[in-house]
Amino acid sequence: MANQDDKFKKVISHAKEYGYVFQSSEIYDGLSAVYDYAQNGAELKKNIRDYWWKAMVQMHDNIVGIDAAIFMHPTTWKASGHVDAFNDPLIDNKDSKKRYRADVLIEDYCAKIEAKIDKEVAKAEKRFGDAFNKEEFVSTNGRVLSYQEKIDSILSRMAKSLENEDLADVKALIEELEIADPLTGSKNWTDVKQFNLMFGTKLGASAENAMDLYLRPETAQGIFVNFLNVQKTGRMKIPFGIAQTGKAFRNEIVARQFIFRMREFEQMEMQFFIKPGTQQEWYEHWKETRLKWHLSLGMGADNYRFHDHEKLAHYADAACDIEFKFPFGFKELEGIHSRTDFDLSQHEKYSGKKLQYFDPEENKSYVPYVLETSIGLDRMFLAVFSNSLVEEELENGTSRTVLKLPSVLAPVKAAVLPLVKKDGLPDVARKIVDELKWDFNVIYDEKDAVGRRYRRQDANGTPFCITVDHDTLEDNTVTIRHRDTMEQQRVKIDDLRTIIKNEVDVRSWLLKMKE
Amino acid sequence: MANQDDKFKKVISHAKEYGYVFQSSEIYDGLSAVYDYAQNGAELKKNIRDYWWKAMVQMHDNIVGIDAAIFMHPTTWKASGHVDAFNDPLIDNKDSKKRYRADVLIEDYCAKIEAKIDKEVAKAEKRFGDAFNKEEFVSTNGRVLSYQEKIDSILSRMAKSLENEDLADVKALIEELEIADPLTGSKNWTDVKQFNLMFGTKLGASAENAMDLYLRPETAQGIFVNFLNVQKTGRMKIPFGIAQTGKAFRNEIVARQFIFRMREFEQMEMQFFIKPGTQQEWYEHWKETRLKWHLSLGMGADNYRFHDHEKLAHYADAACDIEFKFPFGFKELEGIHSRTDFDLSQHEKYSGKKLQYFDPEENKSYVPYVLETSIGLDRMFLAVFSNSLVEEELENGTSRTVLKLPSVLAPVKAAVLPLVKKDGLPDVARKIVDELKWDFNVIYDEKDAVGRRYRRQDANGTPFCITVDHDTLEDNTVTIRHRDTMEQQRVKIDDLRTIIKNEVDVRSWLLKMKE
Repeated sequence: MANQDDKFKKVISHAKEYGYVFQSSEIYDGLSAVYDYAQNGAELKKNIRDYWWKAMVQMHDNIVGIDAAIFMHPTTWKASGHVDAFNDPLIDNKDSKKRYRADVLIEDYCAKIEAKIDKEVAKAEKRFGDAFNKEEFVSTNGRVLSYQEKIDSILSRMAKSLENEDLADVKALIEELEIADPLTGSKNWTDVKQFNLMFGTKLGASAENAMDLYLRPETAQGIFVNFLNVQKTGRMKIPFGIAQTGKAFRNEIVARQFIFRMREFEQMEMQFFIKPGTQQEWYEHWKETRLKWHLSLGMGADNYRFHDHEKLAHYADAACDIEFKFPFGFKELEGIHSRTDFDLSQHEKYSGKKLQYFDPEENKSYVPYVLETSIGLDRMFLAVFSNSLVEEELENGTSRTVLKLPSVLAPVKAAVLPLVKKDGLPDVARKIVDELKWDFNVIYDEKDAVGRRYRRQDANGTPFCITVDHDTLEDNTVTIRHRDTMEQQRVKIDDLRTIIKNEVDVRSWLLKMKE
Repeated sequence: MANQDDKFKKVISHAKEYGYVFQSSEIYDGLSAVYDYAQNGAELKKNIRDYWWKAMVQMHDNIVGIDAAIFMHPTTWKASGHVDAFNDPLIDNKDSKKRYRADVLIEDYCAKIEAKIDKEVAKAEKRFGDAFNKEEFVSTNGRVLSYQEKIDSILSRMAKSLENEDLADVKALIEELEIADPLTGSKNWTDVKQFNLMFGTKLGASAENAMDLYLRPETAQGIFVNFLNVQKTGRMKIPFGIAQTGKAFRNEIVARQFIFRMREFEQMEMQFFIKPGTQQEWYEHWKETRLKWHLSLGMGADNYRFHDHEKLAHYADAACDIEFKFPFGFKELEGIHSRTDFDLSQHEKYSGKKLQYFDPEENKSYVPYVLETSIGLDRMFLAVFSNSLVEEELENGTSRTVLKLPSVLAPVKAAVLPLVKKDGLPDVARKIVDELKWDFNVIYDEKDAVGRRYRRQDANGTPFCITVDHDTLEDNTVTIRHRDTMEQQRVKIDDLRTIIKNEVDVRSWLLKMKE
């Protein structure tokens, strides 16, 4: 656990130091759970987005992309269920005026008891040594057992009350357990209320006629409301998909873990419209296809696993996550959801418009079923970034920090370094930059000894360093150094473009999905 | 004027019919001044954004990009002046409960008088025929002259009152002129109030501690607050630039002209940090460079003009627009502003943090001056789209609708068409699609006669149609048809990739900036 925390702290500080992620509005002491992507981060984020778009839209001639506005008609969120059900149960402390998630207060209370149990078991273990049998100890030690039973009963009662929207009982539970405000110790609580996670704003200036808007909490609905217009003007035939990337907003009460859960975040979603009854087959298809996309980046198959949802959302008839091994453990990276005809049917109901597809093969109209793939761009960023950051022991006993980003995603593809700042080497290096920049994001770096520049580019994630030395002036060759292997090759200047292109081209990376 | 209106209506309906722009939330009868980009529009918008990014970031090794959040610390907008000064003067009608921009009410009133003058002049012109001399007529016809004087005096009084924030006099003017609510005729007005154009929302759930946030009304401030972090972690040396694309929001009271003025829109901005005193030179440099970028798209030099700002914003010491000839006349497309050290100095003042650059050549620290280039992505979309849409008379007496988008920006680069739906031609066509899709956005189309498919792709803006016929089966050649010239060539399938690439590659388009 300590190691995980350390690793995660390193990720966050490296992200700042090397211009990947800054706290938002840092000069004003930041804005909680909001981050800005800096010069390298903006490129990495853009490259991930483009890699997804190419794989999903360009490579599939039955998938098209759209770019719907963040603002939508408010009835959209009535239809989708967000106005009524996108809530967290909150409770205020009357003395401290602080607000908490009621379920988190109870869970934290249980976690404290759990810590007590662990302590007691550890003590007994120490005392009995090899003779210690946990099962036996727990069953003969009334205290530990009753603690454990208490936790189970608390959590199951809470889950039941939340499901039944019995918020009075959630408050009763907090009072029975004598849970106090963690900051002040006060037990003077208000009632538990549902708090909607959508950010609200007002459109239009008229006091009477201003319209209450929400910032969209998900991008999916922008696809559903446009479904029929896209199908008709694009002459799409089922099965077909509509893809979209864009910002969404959630007023999270507990937002933490860096860019993993932010209040403003970006989604990359695809809704695939299918014939009812074929959803199982497409569910399997998209699970497989999406996992292949992740694996094509070469970040290690062991770092991914499927997690099937046991409890399904109201709109789903099957759902799973692709989980990734983040520095803080396996967590959701992407969701694959069989959403049935729930969304389109709701929009039919609320808009009074038919949202049906005429199937020429079946010679009838129906509301299509929907298969969704939904990935958080910021989470994907964190997955790629944290997985790529490694400390390497070198043969000579020293170590280096290297950011082994998949080269197709790396912000800067090559750094061009004159060995020394004289003898015309900078001019040759600049000329190489001026040639390569038409195709790649490249930089020029002449400061410090070349070994130090290599290390800087390693930490920056740059896949290639190109060094111009005195031999270059004689034979038009340069040294190209590979970030991951640290191998160096002598190559012709004229071959640089092809060498780099072969390595960083989207085409060759996507081809790995075929494997 | 009627022609302009007709043209603009055609632009709007073509944008919908061919999947470029839909009204937002159309199934709920739309959301005023908000639009969604449909399957072709999303690609065109993305291609414009990429073309800008490549020219500004990738091609300049002293310009980097960032991607700051829409949410910023609220003090940002105090410092920038938006909280105090980003206002429109509004007035309510007490009977109709409708709200209006007071200045627009007055301007509309003047426009009506102007129409009267025009009518009178036209009448006289008709009566006197060739003998008509406008100057003489106006000076001898007391009525026209007094009308004109009245307009001038109204508008100058309004401008002065607004500048002095004398809102009582703006109301007095409305009452003196007996301006009535255009909907109901009521003259029962409230006082004039300043209305801030920023959208507000609340961050966090605590009733007492929720933070009032704004949706950013411009992207520029996201660059300024990150200036020092980017400069330091990116080791940037002045002069250098920070570029950004992203959404901004303004609660416009009068939002019209399709996607020209929306409440949610996207900006592409670059802030260039320079040594104080060099701003004139950089102002000229960026005026020229940005115009070259526009001209590289080949949409006609006559369609652009510079418009120098006579009245400068509080932060500027020089400013001009690049105007484009939209269907409704020349209007601002891009702004070039010399912003001095206004923004950085304000953020120093409000944050208490130093935002200075240490200049190693001068051996001293200073707050840099800033040169800004700021273009509306949606306006650029409208410029490209409306300029490309033409009705062409053909030699055979028929006409065609063709969307002559610069091919580098076209959403779909090629359509592959089997001449007939049999004899294995569809298979060959599909194979070509499967090969080309790795590099370009291509589609397959087999429906209708081939002539009709050509017209459809013309209207869609697709630069190339590739037709597979029976000869293809013999010699592996296809016909490639060019959208703009309608010329057809017989070429080898193996050469298709190179032919298309030469035409649509960003590199060759950007090279035109050198000319």
